[in-house]
Amino acid sequence: MRALLVVAHGSRRAASNDEVRALTEQLRPQAESEFGHVACAFLELADPLIPDGLQQCLQAGAKDVVLLPYFLSAGRHVTEDIPNIVAEFTTAHPTLNVHISPHLGTEPSLPAALLQLAIN
Amino acid sequence: MRALLVVAHGSRRAASNDEVRALTEQLRPQAESEFGHVACAFLELADPLIPDGLQQCLQAGAKDVVLLPYFLSAGRHVTEDIPNIVAEFTTAHPTLNVHISPHLGTEPSLPAALLQLAIN
Repeated sequence: MRALLVVAHGSRRAASNDEVRALTEQLRPQAESEFGHVACAFLELADPLIPDGLQQCLQAGAKDVVLLPYFLSAGRHVTEDIPNIVAEFTTAHPTLNVHISPHLGTEPSLPAALLQLAIN
Repeated sequence: MRALLVVAHGSRRAASNDEVRALTEQLRPQAESEFGHVACAFLELADPLIPDGLQQCLQAGAKDVVLLPYFLSAGRHVTEDIPNIVAEFTTAHPTLNVHISPHLGTEPSLPAALLQLAIN
């Protein structure tokens, strides 16, 4: 089974973390045909942290995880911190295959989404 | 004339700011039918800052500006800092009408965009 883990930075502001959780709920119905488990996790400041999110994927029976960085730019969090956390987890759990997808800021439909916001 | 100003946080990392500039360039052809001037600006750490971006809108002949917060969550930057900077500018330049659109994190097509990233 393949799981989808949306990973955001995490905030001291609970409402910001709840925005990510709500987005994940919105995503779930669209994702269910491809992913048997859909959840979110946070780099810091909010639960679950990435290792806990990956552990939940394992417990749900996932063999493969697509980790989707919910970040607008490829800063250190995207290029170093997340890959390092994933590498540490998969070293300890070698049966799990984690693929880190491109971060949100690279999505080709983003300009059209922005334009929709601007026009409406 | 109506202008579109995409406003991002700004980063010490030049490549992150260039990602925003590139996105604005991608947006321009799609936006030109609605907006006579399309540009980006930054809350801090990168040029142009928001007041300079608004000034450029004025100089381009804009009477109205849609300011689009390129932020994923409604933290203090979105709820307080950007509105305060805009209010200060429009007090000094009362002929310019600035509308702040909802921030990117609220865009209804975002879940579908995320799923595209995860699947591809």
